[in-house]
Order: sequence, then C-alpha cells, then structure tokens
Amino acid sequence: MSERSDIDALIELMARLPGLGPRSARRAVLHMIRKRGLILNPLSELMATVAATARECLNCGNIGTSDICAICADERRSNGILCVVEDVADLWAMERAGVFKGRYHVLGGTLSALDNIGPEELGLPRLRDRVPSEEITEVILALNATIDGQTTAHYIADLLEGQVTLTSLAQGVPIGGELDYLDDGTITAALNARKAI
Amino acid sequence: MSERSDIDALIELMARLPGLGPRSARRAVLHMIRKRGLILNPLSELMATVAATARECLNCGNIGTSDICAICADERRSNGILCVVEDVADLWAMERAGVFKGRYHVLGGTLSALDNIGPEELGLPRLRDRVPSEEITEVILALNATIDGQTTAHYIADLLEGQVTLTSLAQGVPIGGELDYLDDGTITAALNARKAI
Repeated sequence: MSERSDIDALIELMARLPGLGPRSARRAVLHMIRKRGLILNPLSELMATVAATARECLNCGNIGTSDICAICADERRSNGILCVVEDVADLWAMERAGVFKGRYHVLGGTLSALDNIGPEELGLPRLRDRVPSEEITEVILALNATIDGQTTAHYIADLLEGQVTLTSLAQGVPIGGELDYLDDGTITAALNARKAI
Repeated sequence: MSERSDIDALIELMARLPGLGPRSARRAVLHMIRKRGLILNPLSELMATVAATARECLNCGNIGTSDICAICADERRSNGILCVVEDVADLWAMERAGVFKGRYHVLGGTLSALDNIGPEELGLPRLRDRVPSEEITEVILALNATIDGQTTAHYIADLLEGQVTLTSLAQGVPIGGELDYLDDGTITAALNARKAI
C-alpha cells in the first residue's frame, strides 16, 4: 500500500509522541483527516509557526517565542522571589495555579552522576549570577521529591547559603485528597507540619 | 502571557485529538518543541501533505491519496470476496492481519434511526451495485457486535439475499485470551461453536 505511505508516516510519527501509541495515533490521524479544516490544517500551520519561533528564554529557561520570555520581561514580576523548577511543565503548572507572582529558573533536569549531568549542564552558575543581578531575596526550591530532585535542592541550598532566604513548597495532604489513598510519607509529613485551627 | 499564545493554541488543538487531554497535549507539545528537527518539523510537513492529498476512495470508502484506493486498484484483489466494515480503522485492522485478499466496503457508520442515518447515508445502494459489477460471490459482514452493527448486518443480508453467499466473522475465544476474563456472551458463543479436535 505505497499509496497510503504519507498517512502511514504521519501515524508513525504521531505514535512517537509521549502518551500516544500506535493505536491512539491511528485514531488521532483518522480524526484529523475527517476534521481537515478544523484540526489538520490549523495544526500543521501552528506546528510550523511554533517550530520556527519557539525558543528557550536565555534568562530563565522557560519556552516562549522570544529570547527573553514574557515572565522575565515583565517588570511587575521582579519582586525578589525566584522559584526554581526542574522542567518547563512544572513552570506551566505553577502559572496555571496563578498565585506565584515572581520569576522562575528552569533547570531542565536534576543533578545526576549516572547521566553525567553536573552543575554546568543545569545552568547553576547562571542561577547564582541571577541572585545579585535581579536582587533576589528568596529562592523557592520547587523540585520534585525524588532522590535526584532532593540532591539538586541540597546542592542549590549550599550554593546560595547566606545570600538569600531558601524555602521549599509545603508538604501535606492535597486539597480534596483522602487519607486512605495517601502514602505513608505524605501522612507523616502532614502530621509533623500540623497547624492549630 | 500573550507571548506563548501560539504554543497555547497548539496545546489546545492537540488536546482535541481523541486519546489526548490537556495534560498529555502539554507533554506532547513540550516533547515536540524539544525534538523540533525530528518530530515537530516533519509532523507539520506531513500534516500539510496529508491534508492536501488524503481522500476517500470513491469505490470502497477507504482513505488513501487517490480517487481509487490501492486496494480497489489492485486487480489481484478482485477475487469475488467483499468484506463490509463499519470504519476505516476496521479496514486497517484487517489489513494488518494480512490474511484477507479481497476488497472492502467501508460503511462509515451503522444504520441508526436516532441519528437519522439511513441506507443512503451508508452507501448501501453503492454496495448493491458493486456485487454484479465486480462479480462478487461472497460478502463477509465484519460489523461490530453492537445493536446498531447487527441491525445493519441484518439489513445488508436482506438487501443481498440470493445474490451472494453471506458470511460473518467467527465468534469465540480470542487467541491468548483467558476464560476468566471473558464475558458470558463470548463464552456462550465459543461453546456453541465448539469444534472437534
């Protein structure tokens, strides 16, 4: 079926996206072909635009469409608080919550001796430079609670000690969470950090 | 964050594909941006090509890149056997099995009084015309075991009665299936159609 090769190639490529397998890629492609004007054409154009314009912010590592992202360019967000996250997806999650009004620093990973990722690869020297140049007074370490994430948090804490206030996100019961479904570590953390009502 | 609007629009559009939600669309878009040369650019180009070339086969309803699909154009597949399926995805599944050597007829749905889908909408008159013109001797009704699917199968059986041999796919235990996980209907069907070893 050489005739279908473009469609097959599209399915194969779609199947390489995270969260899609061959079956869901086939369904997605059939859906796109049927909704050509609504989905396939605009998707193709948007992808071309994004491929041409998306870039990492030179300051914080966020993904945007200019060398300095909207958050770093926004003077109102220069409030002296810097939130360090592992990944752009984490930054987006924080932004969706809409409560943090400072700036970010995206590491793009964690320190990992196994994968040969050291402080330079994560841009930690740049993080240290940002503290005086942007008059940072507080650094929130919003790293994942994995071993690598916590190792990285400790390294950054050592790096910036004495220059800024270091904080981390509170640990406890998620809003709407049921005790029965929580792991022991979370319950322990929530109990240790219990508050007076 | 007006700066990120193209990326946001891309995420929104991706989230409308079947099998993807907002979260997986975000992950997919981040992945695409990081693998720009490997995924995002070729994906955009392939989508444009497919949008421009994909069409339904005028004969059988399969999706290909010409007015008559590769299967209908292939003389070796004119063996007098026609397999009727509901959807292009079903045709693709049959082709992956690679065992059927005849041609297909894609209905694009099932008869449904509720949704106002009658014989004309499903191209059933065209199916009837194909039987003499392509010298069909056997029609395999490979429709889903839903109520609408079976209603449609009965309608087609009435339509073609006396002109061709009508068959349906065998029902029974799937290869590798475990009895414990099968529904009662499948076990009943497999038992009723039991074979001598």
